[in-house]
Amino acid sequence: MDKHARQFDKDLDDFKRKLLEMAALAETMIDLAISELVQRDEHQVSQVPQYERDVNRLQIEIDEMALALLATQQPVAVDLRTILAGAKINSELERIGDLVCNITECAHTLLTQPPLKPLIDIPRMADLARRMVRESLDAFVREDVLLAESVIMTDDQVDALKNQVLRELMTYMMSDPRSIERAMSLILIARHLERIGDHATNIAEDVIYMIQGRDVRHPRLQKEQQERKE
Amino acid sequence: MDKHARQFDKDLDDFKRKLLEMAALAETMIDLAISELVQRDEHQVSQVPQYERDVNRLQIEIDEMALALLATQQPVAVDLRTILAGAKINSELERIGDLVCNITECAHTLLTQPPLKPLIDIPRMADLARRMVRESLDAFVREDVLLAESVIMTDDQVDALKNQVLRELMTYMMSDPRSIERAMSLILIARHLERIGDHATNIAEDVIYMIQGRDVRHPRLQKEQQERKE
Repeated sequence: MDKHARQFDKDLDDFKRKLLEMAALAETMIDLAISELVQRDEHQVSQVPQYERDVNRLQIEIDEMALALLATQQPVAVDLRTILAGAKINSELERIGDLVCNITECAHTLLTQPPLKPLIDIPRMADLARRMVRESLDAFVREDVLLAESVIMTDDQVDALKNQVLRELMTYMMSDPRSIERAMSLILIARHLERIGDHATNIAEDVIYMIQGRDVRHPRLQKEQQERKE
Repeated sequence: MDKHARQFDKDLDDFKRKLLEMAALAETMIDLAISELVQRDEHQVSQVPQYERDVNRLQIEIDEMALALLATQQPVAVDLRTILAGAKINSELERIGDLVCNITECAHTLLTQPPLKPLIDIPRMADLARRMVRESLDAFVREDVLLAESVIMTDDQVDALKNQVLRELMTYMMSDPRSIERAMSLILIARHLERIGDHATNIAEDVIYMIQGRDVRHPRLQKEQQERKE
């Protein structure tokens, strides 16, 4: 392997490592936001925003790395797909960071009022969403299609939990109008978590596309195109 | 200009044209979904899903074009940024298509029940969101920073309208529990429109980054980094 190729491999590894670092930050943020919500210490200032600054800094660095890899190394085939996927994953992770900040804002409003109900499903949703973020990035780095597929399947569980949360809180709202404001905040938190799951699903789909060069995003359409070609 | 360069310019134009085509479809979908909601013809089958299939087909084509441009032409500098921005814009447009389908689903539920109130702000939100989509793509094709910046500013109006919708519907819910289900569907539609505005904002930010090579996504952070370098 020549010197140029070795340098490229090293740069590509650095690129992947930065994305892992960003995903780890996003995971920490999810944990923090939910534990702040569950523990209800209204005097504590949320630690989430300081992590978001790190995520934003990483987003800029990673975009610059992607551009530099593309411009100076002129990669082809699977390396090219990896860099393009990485650039998209970068955007997804940044938005996950934004969503966690939104959760923190809702939590802040909730802590000014008495608790509406014990929180069970929302922490479960958060656990699933956090795991999806980690596993989608693991799938990216290890080029693991099966793991990416399992992330996509986990999203159904997140959606099912969200629907459960929604139904339960609707009954609260219908039986007592004073619960409406708090119930709406909790519904919003559930939606933010659902969207974090959606972003992890987008990452997993990008990973499969990167590895297999086929599009899992619209399977029926792909099949039709395939048949037309045959 | 040599033959190779001419071919590259032609391919890049085709790439941009496909993105414009996809944005035009997304605009049509927004119009359709909202007019179906406002006109309340419950017997009519929504036309939105057939457009979504076209959007999904275009997404695959555009990703392949981006990969082909990067692999065969090995572009640098601003062309490289354009292709990378285009690949990201492609993902944003596909998600706008998904969101319009979600609006259609909410509308379908609403049409089975008597109207809760005349819809004023939701169609206004839709108009703004649709305009943001078109202008963000115009800014991309014309490399127009000012237009991209105006898209980002319009997002504040969309958010303000969404808050207005939310407040109004909360009062409906509090005064009459029978309105809760319909109010929740309308709130969800307003949120989907808000997210369409967010995606157009993402596109506008990608466009500015593409043209100026500077990141508008986190201005304070950029400034700090700049100062550290000086």
